[in-house]
Amino acid sequence: MSNLTVVALDAMGGDNAPSAMVQGAVNAVNESKEVKVVLVGKEDVIKAELANHSYPAEQIEIKNATEVIETAEHPVMAIKKKKDSSMVVGLHLVKEGQVDALVSAGNSGALLVGGLGIVGRIRGIERSPFGALIPTKTGVTLLVDSGSNVDCRSSHLVQFAKMGSIYMEKALGIKNPKVALVNNGAEEEKGNALVKETMPLLKECDSINFVGGIEAREIPAGTVDVVVCDGFVGNAILKTFEGVASTLLSVFKEGLTSNLLSKIGAALALPSLKNKLKAFDATQYGGAPLLGLNGLVVKTHGSAKALEVRNTIFQCVTFKEQKINDHIKENIVIEKKED
Amino acid sequence: MSNLTVVALDAMGGDNAPSAMVQGAVNAVNESKEVKVVLVGKEDVIKAELANHSYPAEQIEIKNATEVIETAEHPVMAIKKKKDSSMVVGLHLVKEGQVDALVSAGNSGALLVGGLGIVGRIRGIERSPFGALIPTKTGVTLLVDSGSNVDCRSSHLVQFAKMGSIYMEKALGIKNPKVALVNNGAEEEKGNALVKETMPLLKECDSINFVGGIEAREIPAGTVDVVVCDGFVGNAILKTFEGVASTLLSVFKEGLTSNLLSKIGAALALPSLKNKLKAFDATQYGGAPLLGLNGLVVKTHGSAKALEVRNTIFQCVTFKEQKINDHIKENIVIEKKED
Repeated sequence: MSNLTVVALDAMGGDNAPSAMVQGAVNAVNESKEVKVVLVGKEDVIKAELANHSYPAEQIEIKNATEVIETAEHPVMAIKKKKDSSMVVGLHLVKEGQVDALVSAGNSGALLVGGLGIVGRIRGIERSPFGALIPTKTGVTLLVDSGSNVDCRSSHLVQFAKMGSIYMEKALGIKNPKVALVNNGAEEEKGNALVKETMPLLKECDSINFVGGIEAREIPAGTVDVVVCDGFVGNAILKTFEGVASTLLSVFKEGLTSNLLSKIGAALALPSLKNKLKAFDATQYGGAPLLGLNGLVVKTHGSAKALEVRNTIFQCVTFKEQKINDHIKENIVIEKKED
Repeated sequence: MSNLTVVALDAMGGDNAPSAMVQGAVNAVNESKEVKVVLVGKEDVIKAELANHSYPAEQIEIKNATEVIETAEHPVMAIKKKKDSSMVVGLHLVKEGQVDALVSAGNSGALLVGGLGIVGRIRGIERSPFGALIPTKTGVTLLVDSGSNVDCRSSHLVQFAKMGSIYMEKALGIKNPKVALVNNGAEEEKGNALVKETMPLLKECDSINFVGGIEAREIPAGTVDVVVCDGFVGNAILKTFEGVASTLLSVFKEGLTSNLLSKIGAALALPSLKNKLKAFDATQYGGAPLLGLNGLVVKTHGSAKALEVRNTIFQCVTFKEQKINDHIKENIVIEKKED
């Protein structure tokens, strides 16, 4: 199984399950011999979906799971009670080493609770952050923690910075990634208590290319590769990002189609516009991995469609091939022991 | 001076000072007999600017101040040392009751330090938040605190909610404004320690229309009127908002002008597009008042142009006419005494 990456896919999670999940899996295995997908969920439902597709049979497997965790369920209760849910069954496959990764578009909180409780953190890693890739004018930036740990200590943020740096270097091939800490201004005296405590610790980190504080306004310009903050602030940034982008796009669309002249104009301008906006499509980069676990668990958008699912499957391939968890263990945990 | 609102304007603060400041002041007094502007700053510079304009002489006054606080200066040191700066002189005019308000596009941190130190808080108000109006799909929402207090306690957030509600009701005429607390999800169990402590306190507030938590993604849709959070989170939201909007607008512009066809299309679509986007222009709503002070201090964008300056001057007129500080004293401070 050395050259093959086996990805468990929660076939029941997300707004577009199971069809988008199955379609994404089929697209992935039709493109590459190096990936196998285990579709986890209700066997009869998945079989009926798969019947619409053609694909190499040896690259898709079904793992039956009779329950489904809904988006609005209480995470802790859901993981505890629904032992035969697609998410819990998938997490156990990761824990037991039967698969290399689990991808889910389902309940984020439950995935977090289950990721920590079932798969578990790498020894020495204090907290596991979500690392979301957000589109910028020049490419993509990792926001870490994008929503997992809403109350953090400075030592957590330092580990987030190190894991984020390793991820961007190994998974995205960015040499010596620039790491910045979210702050409320560029000046030295700025910052809340957490930032003031964390800033000097990050300045002392030889293993990362720390460039200082960054105000949220600068993030979309793409001047840094890793943006570090606690999960509450990260969630606020990520969700504001998504909300403003989607609202502005709909306002633009309304403006471009509100009368005949503008409709003609829109038709002429559209190809070039779409081309520019493609760079701002987060789904092309895959999902948000929960960094620092004994295995790989990746959250995709609840609204993920087949393309994002397919991209997230290949993201798991890169994660395995680049041995990102080995780098985390070597660079962060060993460094910590030496402290 | 009962029907006249006297506004001190920091003529030296901001990227476009003094010309945008003087132009904004001239526009305001040419439009209304009910406002008088005291331009604070270097007398010779202001006089030279004013020479380019015609206006009713009795409605513009110059107050000489020989120093200027720069954007990058340390706020505490700047306020302490530059006693004859336009900002400090303007703040003293507010404190002494010689003017009803000070408007400045200068160093936010210094304005905050000076507002608290020189003008002072209303007795019973624990912290003064910035209340920034952010454009939404349906109008405008007040983000409070948008950047003044980076470490908050729950009692501070409760006062922000109450002051924000009064401001939106009195200054913008919104009946029974909907107030929400920023959270990292809609579910009951979400929240960092501060949110979990604050949520039940806000639910108990009879004087406001509290609707619960709001995820940052929902803010641009304009479903609530007042969004409450600590100043660190508020700064992250406000700056992400501004950064994404400006980046997307520039990407759109590039897309619309990248080839001949798209240029023709853009020309046809532009009038309708501009119309739709006007609603997303924050500058039409004026600046961010520092709520809960013994007087009115308003921060405008560092990049403010004459239109925003003019609008902020009229915002001060409304603030005075609607007796917002009296309402804050009556509703919040008295309520507090009864606690």
